[in-house]
Amino acid sequence: MNDAFELPAGVIYLLGHSLGPPAKQTLDAVANCAGQEWAQGLAASWNAAGWFQSGRRLGGKIAALIGVASDEVIVADCVSVNLYKIAVAALLARPERRRVLIEADGFPTDHYILEGACRTIGHARLDTAPRHDLAQAIDRNTGLVVVSHVDYRGGDRVNMETLTEAAHAHGAWIAWDLSHSLGAVEIDLGQADFAVGCGYKYACGGPGAPGFLFVARRHHGALHNPISGWFGHAAPFAFEPAYRASPGIAAFATGTPPILSLAALEAAIDHLAHQDQANLAQANAHLGDLFSGRIAAAAPDPDFVRLTPNQPRGAHIAYTHTQGYALIQALIARGVIGDFRAPDVVRFGFSALYLTAQDAIAAAECVIDVLRDGGLLSQAAAARGHIVT
Amino acid sequence: MNDAFELPAGVIYLLGHSLGPPAKQTLDAVANCAGQEWAQGLAASWNAAGWFQSGRRLGGKIAALIGVASDEVIVADCVSVNLYKIAVAALLARPERRRVLIEADGFPTDHYILEGACRTIGHARLDTAPRHDLAQAIDRNTGLVVVSHVDYRGGDRVNMETLTEAAHAHGAWIAWDLSHSLGAVEIDLGQADFAVGCGYKYACGGPGAPGFLFVARRHHGALHNPISGWFGHAAPFAFEPAYRASPGIAAFATGTPPILSLAALEAAIDHLAHQDQANLAQANAHLGDLFSGRIAAAAPDPDFVRLTPNQPRGAHIAYTHTQGYALIQALIARGVIGDFRAPDVVRFGFSALYLTAQDAIAAAECVIDVLRDGGLLSQAAAARGHIVT
Repeated sequence: MNDAFELPAGVIYLLGHSLGPPAKQTLDAVANCAGQEWAQGLAASWNAAGWFQSGRRLGGKIAALIGVASDEVIVADCVSVNLYKIAVAALLARPERRRVLIEADGFPTDHYILEGACRTIGHARLDTAPRHDLAQAIDRNTGLVVVSHVDYRGGDRVNMETLTEAAHAHGAWIAWDLSHSLGAVEIDLGQADFAVGCGYKYACGGPGAPGFLFVARRHHGALHNPISGWFGHAAPFAFEPAYRASPGIAAFATGTPPILSLAALEAAIDHLAHQDQANLAQANAHLGDLFSGRIAAAAPDPDFVRLTPNQPRGAHIAYTHTQGYALIQALIARGVIGDFRAPDVVRFGFSALYLTAQDAIAAAECVIDVLRDGGLLSQAAAARGHIVT
Repeated sequence: MNDAFELPAGVIYLLGHSLGPPAKQTLDAVANCAGQEWAQGLAASWNAAGWFQSGRRLGGKIAALIGVASDEVIVADCVSVNLYKIAVAALLARPERRRVLIEADGFPTDHYILEGACRTIGHARLDTAPRHDLAQAIDRNTGLVVVSHVDYRGGDRVNMETLTEAAHAHGAWIAWDLSHSLGAVEIDLGQADFAVGCGYKYACGGPGAPGFLFVARRHHGALHNPISGWFGHAAPFAFEPAYRASPGIAAFATGTPPILSLAALEAAIDHLAHQDQANLAQANAHLGDLFSGRIAAAAPDPDFVRLTPNQPRGAHIAYTHTQGYALIQALIARGVIGDFRAPDVVRFGFSALYLTAQDAIAAAECVIDVLRDGGLLSQAAAARGHIVT
């Protein structure tokens, strides 16, 4: 294991696609934010510890990881709220384009949020198309296309450049959900209009870490954040009676941000930013290939079928198995932590930030053992609850 | 000072109306959440440590402090986002009532958010009236009245029962902003429709602690959260393709909440809930009276004029002084921490959670000394930045 992390003994953690573990420096940052900045610095820390600027400062750091300019990204709220802002802003900016298009079977909250945005606006309509048929489904009435770069379930990765071009060919704007991409794969948003994402998966930013939002500079000033709170005001502390949007990306902030959670996220992003992102993406992919190659070579169970393509993909590898739930339980009992998605999908996430090749091999051997010994699967009962995706 | 808190040596902290200090148990809770639940429990802590339920659990705890039922409050997002949800939901539910009414000169973000909600909806209009003339300004076209229970600036407190009745007499709904009330004064929402508030002031929940939202049970199911994210879904982990609102208050949640910040807030609310709220409110008021009574008796400067009424008021006391900025700087240099609001308002917040009568007296003596010695004021220069309200 990498010295920067200290995972529980006896655990091979393949669940970074749900919640990444903390780097030691991230735990230190949380302790410092609570025990020093808050307890000792008190309210003066809004300036002295840079709390005020944390959303923009952190946005700039994430921008560097996703191929855009530092003034095009802000950290604020959560993925759901950020997607709502973008969708409503886009629909209000171009009321003649009433159609929002989203992949079918993508991560549910994106769909739910767009339903809510369309209901809010009234004149808008939400359509779906299969993830890899989106390009064909875009038309002149489409105002916004929303798609996950890496699918949360099957793990396949959409070509960002191609689909962005397809949207623009029809005058549609496109918003990418990067939740399963940041820290997992290389990201270059190129000509994309918008992106949202979370920092609690491969970026290891902490449970429920605030979300990030990219708005291309050409849309600044033209699109209006509907949730126009004081943190998005041009002069939040002038206490002006009327809203006056901040120039640039800052207009997409809303209220007072959760500083303790931001402190964890910032330390995690600082750690991530020290890696070469291309090397990290290759190392992540290598770990997954090692794991799945070992299993493929052993061919322990014809019912255990890989769902994730070889490439392009994200950093988790999904399989189907009729006893998927029992399989995950049996693996957890042996210290190999993956997860299960009904009805029959199991997922294993690989991050070279805290996993080694030995971990990937040992995890594969464990999967092979459990699959070969049918008894282990049938023993694995006992209900386990849900894990956040 | 109370043993539950450990403030920096030499400081009398009268800025709890901006950011409350942490109780020791709150710092312990943050350390436990980061170092144990996250680092050791990893993703399993969503169930094992009760993370999933934290928004609703914490809502129930706050409900008990504000006079409503445990299933009528949820902790989620921030004050600004929560007010937006309520405003849009109310406007969409009754499109025939196009008018939203808010106090003039209230805390700016509430006004800004309502501007954004009205712009989103299109058919709505935002009007203002002086805080104490709101009742007269409500009419049959008014869908929603928004008002702060305690004014962030002057510190006066509106009679909740009377204004709620006035709104209802015209069929209008009313939303109370309790940001300067929770932990400061007794709160009984009675027949109110909605309330929003933050936990980072007198509740000592941490910088940018997530907000809370009260929706009266009679509105559950009838009002729809426009930001319909997965945490508000009836079955978030069923990954259903379409949104299906959770019954009850849970429908007003949105996305994955910032758990580290919630952990701090929950410990703080647990601490607050151990107090008798009526006794605490009286003790807070007593500290303020002691402070201002001492100053009034000394009459150190005719230009130092109390802005806050005797009662009803919140837990901070505001004064005007032409050299208010310099006054606060001079006090800070002596360890007495209050704040300044342009053009000429200074504020001192009193919480018996961590302040004693000796603190209040010593702070008053310090104010008197600085005001009597004009030289101290003119020496106090050096720019200081903004403090979050």
